[in-house]
Amino acid sequence: MAFEYLTNTPLEKAREDYIKLLLEKGFAPRTETIPVCQACGRITAKPVYAHICAPHYAASAMDGVAVRARDTFGATETTPVKLKPEQFIELDTGDPIPQGRDAVIMVEDIVREPDASISIHAPAAPWQHIRQIGEDICAGEMILGERMELSPAAIGAMLAGGVLELEVIKKPLVGIIPTGDEMIPPCADPKSGDILEFNSSIFSAMLDKWGAESRVYPIVPDRFQDIRRALAKAGEECDMVILNAGSSAGREDYSAAVIAELGQVLYHGVAIKPGKPAILGCLGAKPVLGVPGYPVSGIIVIEQLLRPLIDCWFHRSPAQKKTVSATLTRPVVSSLKYQEFVRVRMGYVGDRLMASPLSRGSGVVSSFMKADGILTVPQGSEGYEAGEQVEVELLSREERLKNTLMVIGSHDPLLDELANMMHLEDPRFYMSSSHVGSMGGIMAIRRGEAHAAGCHLLDTDTGEYNLSFIRKYFPKGGVRLLRCVGRLQGLMLQKGNPLNILEFKDIAGDGVRYVNRQKGSGTRILADYLCKKEGIDPAKVYGYEREELTHTSVAAQIACGSADAGMGIYSAAKLYGLDFLPVCTEEYDLLIPDHAWDSPMLRQLVATLKSAAFREKIESMGGYTLDRPGEIIDLEY
Amino acid sequence: MAFEYLTNTPLEKAREDYIKLLLEKGFAPRTETIPVCQACGRITAKPVYAHICAPHYAASAMDGVAVRARDTFGATETTPVKLKPEQFIELDTGDPIPQGRDAVIMVEDIVREPDASISIHAPAAPWQHIRQIGEDICAGEMILGERMELSPAAIGAMLAGGVLELEVIKKPLVGIIPTGDEMIPPCADPKSGDILEFNSSIFSAMLDKWGAESRVYPIVPDRFQDIRRALAKAGEECDMVILNAGSSAGREDYSAAVIAELGQVLYHGVAIKPGKPAILGCLGAKPVLGVPGYPVSGIIVIEQLLRPLIDCWFHRSPAQKKTVSATLTRPVVSSLKYQEFVRVRMGYVGDRLMASPLSRGSGVVSSFMKADGILTVPQGSEGYEAGEQVEVELLSREERLKNTLMVIGSHDPLLDELANMMHLEDPRFYMSSSHVGSMGGIMAIRRGEAHAAGCHLLDTDTGEYNLSFIRKYFPKGGVRLLRCVGRLQGLMLQKGNPLNILEFKDIAGDGVRYVNRQKGSGTRILADYLCKKEGIDPAKVYGYEREELTHTSVAAQIACGSADAGMGIYSAAKLYGLDFLPVCTEEYDLLIPDHAWDSPMLRQLVATLKSAAFREKIESMGGYTLDRPGEIIDLEY
Repeated sequence: MAFEYLTNTPLEKAREDYIKLLLEKGFAPRTETIPVCQACGRITAKPVYAHICAPHYAASAMDGVAVRARDTFGATETTPVKLKPEQFIELDTGDPIPQGRDAVIMVEDIVREPDASISIHAPAAPWQHIRQIGEDICAGEMILGERMELSPAAIGAMLAGGVLELEVIKKPLVGIIPTGDEMIPPCADPKSGDILEFNSSIFSAMLDKWGAESRVYPIVPDRFQDIRRALAKAGEECDMVILNAGSSAGREDYSAAVIAELGQVLYHGVAIKPGKPAILGCLGAKPVLGVPGYPVSGIIVIEQLLRPLIDCWFHRSPAQKKTVSATLTRPVVSSLKYQEFVRVRMGYVGDRLMASPLSRGSGVVSSFMKADGILTVPQGSEGYEAGEQVEVELLSREERLKNTLMVIGSHDPLLDELANMMHLEDPRFYMSSSHVGSMGGIMAIRRGEAHAAGCHLLDTDTGEYNLSFIRKYFPKGGVRLLRCVGRLQGLMLQKGNPLNILEFKDIAGDGVRYVNRQKGSGTRILADYLCKKEGIDPAKVYGYEREELTHTSVAAQIACGSADAGMGIYSAAKLYGLDFLPVCTEEYDLLIPDHAWDSPMLRQLVATLKSAAFREKIESMGGYTLDRPGEIIDLEY
Repeated sequence: MAFEYLTNTPLEKAREDYIKLLLEKGFAPRTETIPVCQACGRITAKPVYAHICAPHYAASAMDGVAVRARDTFGATETTPVKLKPEQFIELDTGDPIPQGRDAVIMVEDIVREPDASISIHAPAAPWQHIRQIGEDICAGEMILGERMELSPAAIGAMLAGGVLELEVIKKPLVGIIPTGDEMIPPCADPKSGDILEFNSSIFSAMLDKWGAESRVYPIVPDRFQDIRRALAKAGEECDMVILNAGSSAGREDYSAAVIAELGQVLYHGVAIKPGKPAILGCLGAKPVLGVPGYPVSGIIVIEQLLRPLIDCWFHRSPAQKKTVSATLTRPVVSSLKYQEFVRVRMGYVGDRLMASPLSRGSGVVSSFMKADGILTVPQGSEGYEAGEQVEVELLSREERLKNTLMVIGSHDPLLDELANMMHLEDPRFYMSSSHVGSMGGIMAIRRGEAHAAGCHLLDTDTGEYNLSFIRKYFPKGGVRLLRCVGRLQGLMLQKGNPLNILEFKDIAGDGVRYVNRQKGSGTRILADYLCKKEGIDPAKVYGYEREELTHTSVAAQIACGSADAGMGIYSAAKLYGLDFLPVCTEEYDLLIPDHAWDSPMLRQLVATLKSAAFREKIESMGGYTLDRPGEIIDLEY
């Protein structure tokens, strides 16, 4: 097969060559004529000239009388001029100036005489108090040039100029063909092995934002002839086509071969990550983009390779990317071979803008949802170190980043609820939480990367939570500990407890598959402590090295049957309907650096923690005790 | 009548009190449930939790075999472990992990034996090469909080999490009621006195941009009962109502009285200009805004008083206004009584961002179309002086301002064509032209406010154009003169020349109404010169003091019959089908300061001037001669 081996073409070159090829083949927009009143945001296809003047008649700018200015010449305070009824015409503001009159005298400036004539005491200058024809727009004037976007005011100007319809660039219609034998439309109860086809919905939404229309075709199975038929049809009906998945070079990847047979493949393989197996092809002058199946790869490929074509169609210069300089909180290691796009969460801690890399998995679409920016690691670079200043393309408004509470540390579902309530209380505020475990949170606070860290660290010597760790890692103080909740920790177990696990040490039992939390998390420290206390060798616990990052994901593994037991909080077990073996109640608090304390955001956090709504919500989740949340704990230095 | 005298409430107070009153009355959004795939850009009405995990089954991340990890323990390079066919299951990437298996071994790492068993040379770690359930999203996790906007990626995350529909804030429906006896729907042939009702189209477009829907009601005549009936109906059907015009306190202004009768008027009269006669009212918890009739006033009132209500409806913090510091090119005098909103054109000349006030007429909707920014003069301020640094709210992208060629000076319709062609050649570039006459252009270049100035100044001693003026005003050089066009100047006359005007001095004839250009314009200087030469006393020319700012507007006055003759260029006369009495051919050139010369924008200007397309377009307009346009003229210092 001709396209078995992918090329590794640099992105810039691939993009430039692609646009060049398409333009050579005659890639050009279609146009349509639409009513002006529906044209806001559309792009003109031709210059628009006024048909009539606006205003289209000379109108009185005052309530008064219309006169011939000549008739008033010579009037003074002492020698008024008298105008006979046939010499003046009464009129209101906005009334047309009658034929033969060329000035308006304000009603305040006339003296009515008993014989129905009027006296005036000053001459009227020709055209005084008259709103002239064309004051706003003159007939024949260009209202708006070609390839310009219509604003609401432009709509007004056109209608005022007698232009009722205009020719605009038609929105390009982009056909989206999802392919894949395992693909099914999104649903809430997929069978194992089914893959939900939601990429087309993401792509449609992106296209809509860029001013394009989309048509999503039915899912096509992985068969050459079926894909060929679907592409031929979409190529007929649409201006551009996205062939989603099958773009790689595996056994069942037919995209490149189908495009080559019906049209032309310019490049198969671009030096980007994610998104390498992209196909840049065309049917005549119509672009056909082969897009990898993983959603994050697809988003990147469409952003980097289809969006420029849409800009080109509308003849607009690409949207200027807003970039900012930020401090990277964790290292980013990247391959020299590719230009890599890394999603980052961002927020200001003090004056420093921090950027934390999100999951780099191509399948993790939620990482794009959470991303505030994109860090591009150029081809030929091995990446960046933690603490390095990097340039990041902003996706969120800077205002939002300034009002985002950065919470880094231990996971608890209550953080999402807290974030939600804070934003509801004051729409300016957002919260971004990263789950790196309690120790990770303490380190983040030490490095000045967060406003708050959730932690629940048991001092196994004293049985005390958090205090000794804080005194150890912040020997000079500089932090406060905010009381949050008490929560029930224990073993989450399969519903009905089929393996009859009755105490912690049963996790080492034969046939028990354990699932653990990552090192550095408070829950892992607790599990390690319990093992030690019970004399269990962790190496003998099957799955002890299997690490998940949240209570919820531990619960999810047990619920789906891939594990039998895992340490976690009651609310997560309840969420998944699991059995639960309580082990202890622990303190989960929020560590706050002093420098972040005195801010409206923190005041809102404290107020929310103390609110009745928070108490009600948290109590409904189960397994929590609330003892004066929002109060400051004495650190006993 | 209760609302005859308008109040002058400060804007901030009016807005705050209005929102407070409405919230007290129960102003709150409605919600609706819609499919997730249609929800991009919408605002959540409730937190959205995942129904299923994504991925929803454990899948192989590789092509290979699924095994029990335990079965592989102890395998080494030298002591391989052999797995019988029932111990392993072949599978491809994405396939579900079969029940009871907990690791995948890559196809590259297995050795197939003749007896259909396989050998492996390293133990498989439990869960290796398996994409775990919930890697992206765990069931029960909050995907997005309440009152958050859905991005394309959020749509993907929800569908991946098995969420197919969600509750969002309904778009508020805003009823727009146009009122006025003279109002007619927009058309291209209105009768004198008809007023085109285009405000509702502007308002609808603005509302659409803010995420609201609008319903435009038929035009209602200025009768109390008709307006009352229309408002009652709109108040039933919509969430908010705009009553457009009739908001003042004149004889036929019924808005305030109608709102008061059906509901409540909080304020009538806000201390803003334009827009003072705004009415802040409500029917129950539904806002009813009385909006003045002039389009610019209407836009300001809706922006300042309705937009905050829409933000409040969606529970979003108001869009942060981007402000920049700019140098004011002309003074802005404002009343102490009002907060005034002045539209400005903006552009960078060198490093300086310049802001030029546009027409401040409330009827001049084109001023809003042209505006790049809004300068706010606070209540209690008398305004600003030319050259002052002022804070301006940006409407245009900064990128655009950096790529806008600022042309200030003499008017010629060819400037619009030039602007259009430049943008077509390179979509990055825009041109903004202000018509202040040739002398105004020279002064703007001297003050460093423009990249180019159109000028055609006749030295009446030498008969030479432009050169002597440039040598006078730029004695040290620092400028270049770019050849543009020769153009035919003359008298524009009523079609058929009914007054039989045969030479210039006939403008002083009895019954001839002249219309002039403003002082400082090259055309005015020419007319003054011709008067002197012909021995005409300008004071004897009727209408000589009547000034228009462009050739087109002079032509428009003659075409509509409000003047008989005016000096101007042939192309303007041709546009309006006027008779034309040629007087001379003059040089119209572009003066460029040296500091602006070496830039891509100027290179594009020169290229466009030299292009065949420019020649073709200009020749089609009539009255122009093109002699090497785009070449530099020797200034003969």
